[in-house]
Amino acid sequence: MEEIQGKEKKWVDVPVRVRYADTDKMGIVYYGTYPTYFEIARSEFMRKIGLTYKELEEKGYHLVVTELVIKYFSPATYDDLLVIRTCVKELKSRGLKFEYEILRDGKILAVGYTKHVCVDKNKKPISLPQDLVEILKDVAS
Amino acid sequence: MEEIQGKEKKWVDVPVRVRYADTDKMGIVYYGTYPTYFEIARSEFMRKIGLTYKELEEKGYHLVVTELVIKYFSPATYDDLLVIRTCVKELKSRGLKFEYEILRDGKILAVGYTKHVCVDKNKKPISLPQDLVEILKDVAS
Amino acid sequence: MEEIQGKEKKWVDVPVRVRYADTDKMGIVYYGTYPTYFEIARSEFMRKIGLTYKELEEKGYHLVVTELVIKYFSPATYDDLLVIRTCVKELKSRGLKFEYEILRDGKILAVGYTKHVCVDKNKKPISLPQDLVEILKDVAS
Amino acid sequence: MEEIQGKEKKWVDVPVRVRYADTDKMGIVYYGTYPTYFEIARSEFMRKIGLTYKELEEKGYHLVVTELVIKYFSPATYDDLLVIRTCVKELKSRGLKFEYEILRDGKILAVGYTKHVCVDKNKKPISLPQDLVEILKDVAS
Repeated sequence: MEEIQGKEKKWVDVPVRVRYADTDKMGIVYYGTYPTYFEIARSEFMRKIGLTYKELEEKGYHLVVTELVIKYFSPATYDDLLVIRTCVKELKSRGLKFEYEILRDGKILAVGYTKHVCVDKNKKPISLPQDLVEILKDVAS
Repeated sequence: MEEIQGKEKKWVDVPVRVRYADTDKMGIVYYGTYPTYFEIARSEFMRKIGLTYKELEEKGYHLVVTELVIKYFSPATYDDLLVIRTCVKELKSRGLKFEYEILRDGKILAVGYTKHVCVDKNKKPISLPQDLVEILKDVAS
Repeated sequence: MEEIQGKEKKWVDVPVRVRYADTDKMGIVYYGTYPTYFEIARSEFMRKIGLTYKELEEKGYHLVVTELVIKYFSPATYDDLLVIRTCVKELKSRGLKFEYEILRDGKILAVGYTKHVCVDKNKKPISLPQDLVEILKDVAS
Repeated sequence: MEEIQGKEKKWVDVPVRVRYADTDKMGIVYYGTYPTYFEIARSEFMRKIGLTYKELEEKGYHLVVTELVIKYFSPATYDDLLVIRTCVKELKSRGLKFEYEILRDGKILAVGYTKHVCVDKNKKPISLPQDLVEILKDVAS
């Protein structure tokens, strides 16, 4: 995974090996598997910037998904070593947007984004924690 | 499930019971489960119009997904009895669009759509079979 | 789904339509999908006897799985209308066993069982609630 | 992942990070996720011995699962870095058995095994390819 060093490197690349479970009878990765690939990349992005999503939840913050968009260009297949690339966009007080690219050997197979709002344990919208905002300000595009 | 009777009833409603497997540690349905709910509705839509997706594949046609969009308004939870509502839009010679609504007790929890292109066994784009086009013409919005 | 009427009918049959998401590149249902089929059957079994698993959890009881066994005889395929048959065996104070059969057109495709212990919200083993035990006594084999 | 060097090192260890998608509303890894963890380990085992499962399938051989057993001792949770340990047992002309351990920080959370028969593209049982048998003879316990 690439290092994030200040504002220059805003992308995080996560390698993901396609599992047999990810495929469907068409012999390719099921279209409903991609949201999970996105989630892995978000999770590793958070770890990279120094505040894991697990820790965020333990502090009482949850980033629920409000919107998901995926455009599929070429299929991925079993045992492919994919790269899931992600970055943060549209940082707001109560939410943010992640953008993704799924690549194999440098070729983009799919792109997409997810929008999130920050909620507390009772699913009530709240502001993102200030320490997270400070970090994201530096890395958000 | 509702009957499709000519052009009046263009929507198909499919009941889906939320499984424990569909949920995540936030206690709600995982956002990546919804594409599968959409797939169930497409599948039942095809059955309803008289040409199952299984038969379509046996004839050598596959409707690969090129675009997925989901907007999440309210979470679904374990054991909910959801209704997945779907209809066909934008019928073209080589593809089509399905629109979806996910409801619980009449309340819309999420909406979305999928775009598809028709391909043959070698993943090469081809025209939709003529008999399917004839049926869809009558039910597409 | 069959009615449970006293001790005579101890099995519950649940119809499950195989989803595209359930399949893998071998063109059959992925072996890891079967535990979810079992879960559906357990869930419907509980509903049938009058205490849903959701209610049980709301009361603070969880039936965690301690053992899973599946024997696969013949593959299931996309769009198959399966029947998942389940019954309760080995009812104990702090746990129980569910047995399953997966059928298509009366033919058994797979069999298996799950063993469960009852735990509270802190994952500590506790006795099954008395009202559940009373009901299960009548239907357990 | 550990090296396999002759008969001494027969186990392969595969690190797996628990995904949010793997969890359920009980806050732990869903019991039906473990078969996928096993599959990942089998897949990496094959890569390690020099014949990937993908290549095996391309040659016309499939290792279908005939039996699955899992014993769950302690739950895994979101973001855990698990180790899936696997080895081959009971090597026969037409099948084999994989054994697994799932560990976190050296503690065993679950154990299990899968039994497989080798089939051709038409799902007909055939002998394992001779080159695979030669390799497995050296590493099977």
